[in-house]
Amino acid sequence: MTAPERFADDPAFAVHEGGKLQVRPTRGIESIADLALTYTPGVARVSSAIAAEPPLARRYTWAPRVVAVVSDGTAVLGLGDIGPAAALPVMEGKACLFSEFGGLSAVPIVLSTTDTEEIVAAVEAIAPSFGGINLEDISAPRCFEIEDRLRKSLSIPVMHDDQHGTAIVVLAALRNAARVVGRELGDLRVVVAGAGAAGVACTKILLEAGIGDISVADSKGILHPGREDLTPIKQWLVDNTNEAGFAGTMVDALAGADVYLGLSGGSVPESAIATMAENCIVFSLANPIPEVDPEMAATYAAVVATGRSDLPNQINNVLAFPGVFRGAIDAGATSITEEMKLAAATALADVVGDEVRADYIVPSPLDRRVAAAVAEAVAACARESGVATPG
Amino acid sequence: MTAPERFADDPAFAVHEGGKLQVRPTRGIESIADLALTYTPGVARVSSAIAAEPPLARRYTWAPRVVAVVSDGTAVLGLGDIGPAAALPVMEGKACLFSEFGGLSAVPIVLSTTDTEEIVAAVEAIAPSFGGINLEDISAPRCFEIEDRLRKSLSIPVMHDDQHGTAIVVLAALRNAARVVGRELGDLRVVVAGAGAAGVACTKILLEAGIGDISVADSKGILHPGREDLTPIKQWLVDNTNEAGFAGTMVDALAGADVYLGLSGGSVPESAIATMAENCIVFSLANPIPEVDPEMAATYAAVVATGRSDLPNQINNVLAFPGVFRGAIDAGATSITEEMKLAAATALADVVGDEVRADYIVPSPLDRRVAAAVAEAVAACARESGVATPG
Repeated sequence: MTAPERFADDPAFAVHEGGKLQVRPTRGIESIADLALTYTPGVARVSSAIAAEPPLARRYTWAPRVVAVVSDGTAVLGLGDIGPAAALPVMEGKACLFSEFGGLSAVPIVLSTTDTEEIVAAVEAIAPSFGGINLEDISAPRCFEIEDRLRKSLSIPVMHDDQHGTAIVVLAALRNAARVVGRELGDLRVVVAGAGAAGVACTKILLEAGIGDISVADSKGILHPGREDLTPIKQWLVDNTNEAGFAGTMVDALAGADVYLGLSGGSVPESAIATMAENCIVFSLANPIPEVDPEMAATYAAVVATGRSDLPNQINNVLAFPGVFRGAIDAGATSITEEMKLAAATALADVVGDEVRADYIVPSPLDRRVAAAVAEAVAACARESGVATPG
Repeated sequence: MTAPERFADDPAFAVHEGGKLQVRPTRGIESIADLALTYTPGVARVSSAIAAEPPLARRYTWAPRVVAVVSDGTAVLGLGDIGPAAALPVMEGKACLFSEFGGLSAVPIVLSTTDTEEIVAAVEAIAPSFGGINLEDISAPRCFEIEDRLRKSLSIPVMHDDQHGTAIVVLAALRNAARVVGRELGDLRVVVAGAGAAGVACTKILLEAGIGDISVADSKGILHPGREDLTPIKQWLVDNTNEAGFAGTMVDALAGADVYLGLSGGSVPESAIATMAENCIVFSLANPIPEVDPEMAATYAAVVATGRSDLPNQINNVLAFPGVFRGAIDAGATSITEEMKLAAATALADVVGDEVRADYIVPSPLDRRVAAAVAEAVAACARESGVATPG
């Protein structure tokens, strides 16, 4: 059987036939005159002008409006380490979303190496080609060091979306969920299940947003000072979370908790959810199978959110990354700061506005208002905080 | 004055406003169902299939039809070492031509490094994202080692266009020029001025095409066994050219020569051209100012060609690279062999066919028949010579 015959029953394959992207000129080449302006000799005058005055590149090249979607294929969706070729459809899909929602060009860059040094060197080498670097589906803990180093060495926005895209949407959703149950963010006790890329970034942004009491669990239980052999980032979590002092399993910490944030996969029993506080909030984001059955969760929780497109309250990164990069690029930002991420979350939550209710804490992923609102807030924040490029 | 005011008199800047390329999805995302097929969860099924059966990537990703146009900005047109940002308009222009004439997507990759090791490592790292690597405007002699190493380490087509694109078009043009003057290629004595990227590659392909007597000059004169401090590639030229045994200047060798091939810039005096053989052929390809004044050359030569778009017989790489890469990619070729380049030159010359005359030895750069004819010949050659991917 040929490939198309084998996959005839799955429309996803038809959508992927020949790939999902194309690069096209913005203007046609119909005449020798067109050729002489787009290419030699006309292009030489533009290149000379940029060589003499580098900021002109922002106006006369495409690079400032192109995002590289960079992955080594080690932590792809729920599939794990599937390598660069198999990761490519995901990166192409991401690039489609950058275009559709952010009005940006994006180029998938999948890597033949998983070595931290080699990844950093390769991205630094190709960086002049791009206006932003979206790191994607790179496994923890390498993702932390790779992002940190590229943020320091490059003067364009760099963001690991599995960390910060997720964190921005989670914070926006939690802001609105708190409104639904009539609580202040600062009063909520949160349990985060998962200490990978998303768990770490969500915990950080929730702390920055003023949530005082967060306990984080990895596969061995709650992160606490008695734990040994911790990576640097987990040690940071030990030092900055768990005021309540839990030292057992995630299930222990759930008793009386206001918020469960599942970013781990696996499964949480009904008996554990039943011990949570009244009017609790359950965000169960493993995809395609949430850690907590959403129907079961709804019998205990006032607000339930998942990553699934067939249920209300879908926590989807597409609500964040197109607007975040578009805003940063519009402002000529040299980086994406914590303030810009917080501004993005607030703007995202505000799109829902007064229509907020238990089954509408985040906008639809197709809501075209979202990227524009997020971009505007991020650009304004960049300008106020001095990371924008004047003019 | 703002940038647009300063450049208002030059239409090249208007053409470059905002850049010359964009990446767009091949299919729109209008519904949650579209989103679920283009991105999660549908994309996971495609990624899983590729992970299990890697050749499916050829069908279900865009990579096989995307060419990276890679430059470090060290040898850009006649401008020299202007760096990656200023080189970008040239690479964007090249990508436009890949699209317009080859029907391929192409992505400019300009590099922040000029170190051979770092360039090779970066291109190897990003190679799984692409179906071909077009090296561009990288200065000699680094360009030779970089191309050699990438050709060995990668299993996709790699071609330094300044070398081989030029060489293919020059051979095609010389084939037809020889027909105009009623000579066999093998009988011609050729002087090549320039031992950089283009000079080396043109000399090699002319030798492969059967021209027996070629003398190559660099800025210090003819390359001959008495020369010292030669790079490896110039030593190769010494060992494989100059049967006539010239040891002086380029002008000495021109006396009685049948063909002058200028790839060096600078200027050749009329007195030297006047010494060439009867019915001689002058290809003077420096841009924008040919080494030999074309009007003056025409008083001595039977056929004159330049790189200029305002004169007949424009030797322009766009006649080669779109079709060469398209043919290689169509065949799933793992490399671009010498045979494929020779086949490209023959196919290009044959587009002119029986209409050949002194002012029509190559087709117009806008001739849409060219890329198709070159691609077909290159793909057929790849299949015959066993570098194609079956199916």
